[in-house]
Amino acid sequence: MKNKTVFSIGEFGLIEIIKRTFSKLNNNKNIVAGIGDDCFCFKSGMDTICITKDMLVEDIHFKRDWITSKELGQKAIEVNISDIAAMGNVKPEYAFIGLGIPSDTSKKFATDLANGFKTVCDKYNMTVAGGDTVKSNKIIISVSLVGITKNNIVKRTGAKPGDLIGITNTFGDSGAGINLLYKYGQKHKYSKAERSLINRQNNPKARLNESQKIAKYLTSLTDASDGLYVSIGLLAKESGLGADIYIDKIPLSSTIKKVFNKEKKCLDFALFGGEDYELVFTMPKSKAKIVQKIVPEVTYIGEINPSKKVRYFKNGKEEKIKYLGFKHF
Amino acid sequence: MKNKTVFSIGEFGLIEIIKRTFSKLNNNKNIVAGIGDDCFCFKSGMDTICITKDMLVEDIHFKRDWITSKELGQKAIEVNISDIAAMGNVKPEYAFIGLGIPSDTSKKFATDLANGFKTVCDKYNMTVAGGDTVKSNKIIISVSLVGITKNNIVKRTGAKPGDLIGITNTFGDSGAGINLLYKYGQKHKYSKAERSLINRQNNPKARLNESQKIAKYLTSLTDASDGLYVSIGLLAKESGLGADIYIDKIPLSSTIKKVFNKEKKCLDFALFGGEDYELVFTMPKSKAKIVQKIVPEVTYIGEINPSKKVRYFKNGKEEKIKYLGFKHF
Repeated sequence: MKNKTVFSIGEFGLIEIIKRTFSKLNNNKNIVAGIGDDCFCFKSGMDTICITKDMLVEDIHFKRDWITSKELGQKAIEVNISDIAAMGNVKPEYAFIGLGIPSDTSKKFATDLANGFKTVCDKYNMTVAGGDTVKSNKIIISVSLVGITKNNIVKRTGAKPGDLIGITNTFGDSGAGINLLYKYGQKHKYSKAERSLINRQNNPKARLNESQKIAKYLTSLTDASDGLYVSIGLLAKESGLGADIYIDKIPLSSTIKKVFNKEKKCLDFALFGGEDYELVFTMPKSKAKIVQKIVPEVTYIGEINPSKKVRYFKNGKEEKIKYLGFKHF
Repeated sequence: MKNKTVFSIGEFGLIEIIKRTFSKLNNNKNIVAGIGDDCFCFKSGMDTICITKDMLVEDIHFKRDWITSKELGQKAIEVNISDIAAMGNVKPEYAFIGLGIPSDTSKKFATDLANGFKTVCDKYNMTVAGGDTVKSNKIIISVSLVGITKNNIVKRTGAKPGDLIGITNTFGDSGAGINLLYKYGQKHKYSKAERSLINRQNNPKARLNESQKIAKYLTSLTDASDGLYVSIGLLAKESGLGADIYIDKIPLSSTIKKVFNKEKKCLDFALFGGEDYELVFTMPKSKAKIVQKIVPEVTYIGEINPSKKVRYFKNGKEEKIKYLGFKHF
């Protein structure tokens, strides 16, 4: 086709265009992680500086009716903290907030949003270092965080054959929460369990503390923003390896099981729902006990294999899994 | 009023809300420049790391018809380089590009935009370190640059009474160029001189080289993005001082004088037009000759006074200047 649109080439097509355009990345010896990892990281003397960048656009990533402005401000920072956590034992230091805001936005909305930013920046003892405000027709929140560490960072590329694959907490609640909002909107009379799923969607918590404590044992690490399926695929692919995943071992919350009583549905949310912001990582088997002792909410769901294929098993039998994820374009 | 909107409180009102919400800024001793300067800068060992963040939103900061996508990509990087130049002798190292892009954007537009980014990143020998693409209904370009230096940075706060006020090149062309586009659109048959003004608007060049060479002589420095009037006001205010400006000395290009033959109109563009991305700085009188020798395109247009008032003089007589600038909201 002569006049392809971004829609027809898809987001990965667009990223490929951009990657091809910028091929000099690996020439700079100070760069320790770049495009393809959760943060961009570079060496500065004894320090490694890690930078995140995420953009939330109204009606694409959130709807104003579905989340309070304070929650929105908190979430915008937490999801970037999650990218810092995905690099291991790194301390988030500075936040930059770029805000696109329509003229008719209420002062209350803006104040609550700023309070949301502040609540999370305070929680992580971070300094808001700058940013800008521009007029736009939709709310746009563009956050960059700077994290600093003297430790080795944990990239997506270091998994070894035989390594265990671990995850924190449960998966699927957040995806189930947004599914409910899509289906019934904000004003629906939700049960307590349903509210709890929506709460996981609107109030994610980055696993920074956990990551800081176990990073030194890990061989590869990411945070699950696009579902467990994508995260496992990334760790395997970036390490040039494959993975065997035991579906039965994927931890689901009692809440999601109460609301969606079909197990298949719950697993779909875990694999493809996204926005869990839990850690997904690999490590030598010999470290399994100590890691689980430090963070009891860790579950091992599989292991790295040398095949370059990600295989899913249920009751000992391989299952073909079809990608049902969210398409940006 | 109970339900003020962002429109009624204005951008400065919004920035005030955000500033008030984040008051911890000065507690961190590693921060050497923060909100209120052109970059956020912090110490990391022997290095000072400078970070910019700018957002360009379609139909607010640019119209797709008025600028080619390659020019747009170039401009998005140049205006951030200009913020790096505004900190003195700093080397821009890494670029992060966040892109919000509508589904119906052509592949050609996306490719040309990426080529625009690349052209300028290559020119400054910068590495594109990361970024993200998201769907949006308007094009949004959110760029952050990281600059690094072992030199002292030049802030907006260091001007001293008696310091000369210098600027690079001429002012007003860019504001005049956008004025023409607003009036006649892209398809109008423009004269060569008019095209040249539009070119200054669409193809700004950051004065990084000049800044790197003269930074060590300067006491305060900024880049003029919102017109000379705002830039001079900022240097005076941030240094807790005033300024005397000799309007007759403000350099105007022969092009702008040809297109708009009223001097008053040309000066309005210089003072309020914006997007010149020239340097505006102060320095001791004793350094005037050496600075002008290094950068011949420097003009001295006034000096810092201890009064906290910015006064404008024409033919030796004070003139009251009324702010005619661009309002974001």
